[in-house]
Amino acid sequence: MIKAAAERLDGHARRTPLLGSPFIDEIAGRRVMVKAECLQHTGSFKFRGGWAALSAMDDATRKRGVLAYSSGNHAQGVAHAATLHGAPSVIVMPSDAPQLKIENTRALGAEVVLYDRASEPREEIGARLAKERSLTLIKPYDEPQVIAGQGTCGLEIAEQAREVGIEQGDVLVNCGGGGLTAGIALALEVDAPGLRVRPCEPEGFDDTARSLVSGRIEHNDRMSGSICDAILTPAPGEKTFPILKRLCGPGIVVSEDEALRAMALAFLRLKIVLEPGGAVSLAAALFHGDQIDAQEVVVVATGGNVDPDLFARALATLKD
Amino acid sequence: MIKAAAERLDGHARRTPLLGSPFIDEIAGRRVMVKAECLQHTGSFKFRGGWAALSAMDDATRKRGVLAYSSGNHAQGVAHAATLHGAPSVIVMPSDAPQLKIENTRALGAEVVLYDRASEPREEIGARLAKERSLTLIKPYDEPQVIAGQGTCGLEIAEQAREVGIEQGDVLVNCGGGGLTAGIALALEVDAPGLRVRPCEPEGFDDTARSLVSGRIEHNDRMSGSICDAILTPAPGEKTFPILKRLCGPGIVVSEDEALRAMALAFLRLKIVLEPGGAVSLAAALFHGDQIDAQEVVVVATGGNVDPDLFARALATLKD
Repeated sequence: MIKAAAERLDGHARRTPLLGSPFIDEIAGRRVMVKAECLQHTGSFKFRGGWAALSAMDDATRKRGVLAYSSGNHAQGVAHAATLHGAPSVIVMPSDAPQLKIENTRALGAEVVLYDRASEPREEIGARLAKERSLTLIKPYDEPQVIAGQGTCGLEIAEQAREVGIEQGDVLVNCGGGGLTAGIALALEVDAPGLRVRPCEPEGFDDTARSLVSGRIEHNDRMSGSICDAILTPAPGEKTFPILKRLCGPGIVVSEDEALRAMALAFLRLKIVLEPGGAVSLAAALFHGDQIDAQEVVVVATGGNVDPDLFARALATLKD
Repeated sequence: MIKAAAERLDGHARRTPLLGSPFIDEIAGRRVMVKAECLQHTGSFKFRGGWAALSAMDDATRKRGVLAYSSGNHAQGVAHAATLHGAPSVIVMPSDAPQLKIENTRALGAEVVLYDRASEPREEIGARLAKERSLTLIKPYDEPQVIAGQGTCGLEIAEQAREVGIEQGDVLVNCGGGGLTAGIALALEVDAPGLRVRPCEPEGFDDTARSLVSGRIEHNDRMSGSICDAILTPAPGEKTFPILKRLCGPGIVVSEDEALRAMALAFLRLKIVLEPGGAVSLAAALFHGDQIDAQEVVVVATGGNVDPDLFARALATLKD
């Protein structure tokens, strides 16, 4: 399924570059190569899953349109992929989502339906809309075509790592519901079996790390209150967790301050823009090297949709 | 020479991606594709010319070492290329250069020799050092191997533009002494004759634009006082200008404020970090579209070595 998705994405998704810097290696104490998925269309890997889902539908289904719940990267990925397919998209977003994200999603061609986070469950609004208008729901991670789409990033990593001589090592992936993490792990299992995936999460939202320890799905206590908003999910998915359990090494957990410092170093040394949730994996490589045995590491820098004020806060850490 | 340089650079320089965004196209009023040369090793295209020059030398010459005058991107490009070749490098820098640039150049393996801008001409110090230690000078732009190295960026543009269906259009290039501009123009002349180079400069430092109008080399009144420090040179080079004159369309001149706004939009929409001198070409596409007839435009975003305070100033333009 991942290879079939890669064929459908060819010429549409970007093959993002694998970047490195001697300055980053020096801090990390080992070679670190960064897969810059922030340079993907719509600023995150989510475009891959959106495109994979849309392109797998039959024409009639696609023409009726798609629906997604998201206040962030999945919304933009699905909206853009749908518009490029000539398909209508409806994105259900909380009414208190940042105005810029709402505007961006609309500008990418979606109809945005706002809901009140406190009073209306988004699932109900979504179910009603999907039924009334015969829309197909594209779930953000617990959905085989979405996992396959994100997995195309893993195929590229296998190839690009080989090109720079990395056949053994850890691949650090920012992990929310686990769609990208599972997809990459499945791709590497076949194409680069010497590379092992390590899920990376922010403190207080380490559901995947704890689930991997206990062997069953563990939940987070809360769903907000972190600057790493892109990767906050209640728990690993029913479909993704068995894959993570079978294929991944232990999770790595980083602090918000470390994520901000990683953003600043990505600015300074790699010239890429990362959002906090997109920099957690780089922070793990830079500041938690004691938890890594591998000589060489690939970091998946998953997204760059960050507002300027928060980015300025990250830059300020360079003065500490 | 450019194709020979490309063979020597293969596997060493990065093939930087060609990025685009519907939001950028909307502002520019046409399709704009951005060649993200800020993602090159050492954060600018200068690594190409440095590598081309080093790799063209015979072993004995290379072993004796190289010399460059530069306070910025050329220094880092030459230092890194020399170190990777196992060759010593001496970089002559003004003693008032930013501490970070001096440290970076040293960290990349160069010996930095500081001079007092007011009292000692750098040419004299350089000539003395070169003679005493049998070093070979690598000039920043008026040097055939350097022009050939920068031209490899043009070969990639020809290929990447074709991949996205651009066969006719303008290629906007940030222009200092004209090494990159001339190299790209020569590469496109053969590989993509439908693409025409337009040099882009900041206000007050439009020596190339004026030279193209008058048909002879014109000079700038001053050599400092712009945030676009990467592309401030006294005049187009003796070797580069005849190439520019033969192959380029008219120059485009942008303000410092426009360069800052282009940096902010590159942050927001492309997720790349540009320095002011690296964003002038994007500013030309975004804010001077009235001087462009072409339906489609390729922008060469030449570098990203900017300090955090100046970058924060660029981000603040998003609030205007």
